[in-house]
Amino acid sequence: MTLEIQKNRTATKYSKKEQLLRVLWMLGGFFFRFSPRPFFGLRRSLLRLFGSQVGEKVNIYPSATIYFPWNLIIGDYSAIGEHALIYNLGPVEIGKNVTISHMAQVCAGTHDYTDPAMPLLKPMIVIEDNVWICTQAFVGPGISVKEGAVIGAGAVLTKSTEKWMVYAGNPAKPIKSRKLKKHNS
Amino acid sequence: MTLEIQKNRTATKYSKKEQLLRVLWMLGGFFFRFSPRPFFGLRRSLLRLFGSQVGEKVNIYPSATIYFPWNLIIGDYSAIGEHALIYNLGPVEIGKNVTISHMAQVCAGTHDYTDPAMPLLKPMIVIEDNVWICTQAFVGPGISVKEGAVIGAGAVLTKSTEKWMVYAGNPAKPIKSRKLKKHNS
Amino acid sequence: MTLEIQKNRTATKYSKKEQLLRVLWMLGGFFFRFSPRPFFGLRRSLLRLFGSQVGEKVNIYPSATIYFPWNLIIGDYSAIGEHALIYNLGPVEIGKNVTISHMAQVCAGTHDYTDPAMPLLKPMIVIEDNVWICTQAFVGPGISVKEGAVIGAGAVLTKSTEKWMVYAGNPAKPIKSRKLKKHNS
Repeated sequence: MTLEIQKNRTATKYSKKEQLLRVLWMLGGFFFRFSPRPFFGLRRSLLRLFGSQVGEKVNIYPSATIYFPWNLIIGDYSAIGEHALIYNLGPVEIGKNVTISHMAQVCAGTHDYTDPAMPLLKPMIVIEDNVWICTQAFVGPGISVKEGAVIGAGAVLTKSTEKWMVYAGNPAKPIKSRKLKKHNS
Repeated sequence: MTLEIQKNRTATKYSKKEQLLRVLWMLGGFFFRFSPRPFFGLRRSLLRLFGSQVGEKVNIYPSATIYFPWNLIIGDYSAIGEHALIYNLGPVEIGKNVTISHMAQVCAGTHDYTDPAMPLLKPMIVIEDNVWICTQAFVGPGISVKEGAVIGAGAVLTKSTEKWMVYAGNPAKPIKSRKLKKHNS
Repeated sequence: MTLEIQKNRTATKYSKKEQLLRVLWMLGGFFFRFSPRPFFGLRRSLLRLFGSQVGEKVNIYPSATIYFPWNLIIGDYSAIGEHALIYNLGPVEIGKNVTISHMAQVCAGTHDYTDPAMPLLKPMIVIEDNVWICTQAFVGPGISVKEGAVIGAGAVLTKSTEKWMVYAGNPAKPIKSRKLKKHNS
């Protein structure tokens, strides 16, 4: 038994349009990366220019990586922290009030390892409103993180979640429900 | 149910003094980052200038990140490796002879996820003498790592430890005691 | 009980030749890091110049780190992804058709934590043909990853594997066998 990686190498993985966008984003991404930290609006504009759907007051830090902006939807008041990686080879949809903490990875790409050519797959990820993906957590391909879920620090999530539950560990498991206090405003 | 991230955004998270220090550390951190690798003394001096208490012979590598130097105490002969992150939003106290290996994270910051405004919390971390935090390990907020403990590669530590025990896994669990050989000097 | 880190600091960890190579690789590594992404051949040549044995069509990305090129053997059609770390203080032998995905770490270095001087150890790692080390996975010192094994995303591997098995979790455990489909070419 052996793989046939040479077939993977010669496969067409991205459309001509996407290949062009990637080259242009090398340049756009440079401005993103070296933009001053408080210039969240500039980074929102850059992402929109490259095809992202970005809500109001979305705070994305300059050291975060949006791999393919054209595959990103992100809602109002969501945030993506320092050195986080949105590896959106496939579509990544993020709702409102979502926090993705520093160094977390949302990974919408994988390979079919049962195929000798290891073809690239790009399964969509959905992260619903009010979710918190903590630092160094990993959200795998094809997953839905349901409303209000918390994915703990360093957790490796390989299955979709329930709503308003807290997950931790590798592999991540539900450990308790998330109950919101009433606020006193 | 929904979060109220707009309240988090407008909350005062840092004092005026701390905000000023952060701006100055952007500059100081630049010299730290681009200092030549063997210039450990220069980096110790820079950290002290920004309020760290740094012992003798402390070796911190240029690619390590000390988020807030004014929240760092570190004892003699301790070391912080390449690309390690001391995310000391709250105080981090590190004893003597401590090794924090490359790419480890010590994370003294979190959010109260039961509060709709997700307020920032900064629970102190204490790492006692003779501890080894291995590569890619994660030490969470509010934890005490007791004397001589070893936190294995990639372990995610969410509770305080016993002394002279070895921890591994995610979540990290004690796996054996650490017994020192007698040395032959 | 206490460690004697000062003994570690004064120990000779690398030969004179290796110390010289490290200094030269600081320069060579700069060209590697800032080489354009499609220049895989240039990076192969650079690694060979520094003593790596590199097969044909090996694709190593510019943000990957080969710590000590003179301790690397890598076979035809293998690839090392973005921000992956080959921490080859000791020898790392990688076979053919191996994929090491972005941000994975192969760590051929550790310390004897039962010795007060924490002496540096450099146990060899072998990764056989047709293996896939997924993103953020960790392969520890002294391990053999046998032919065709898959080490899942974020998995922390601390023991050698079986052939053609899939491992996941921290600590990593075998979860299923990897069966290749017949291809239709």
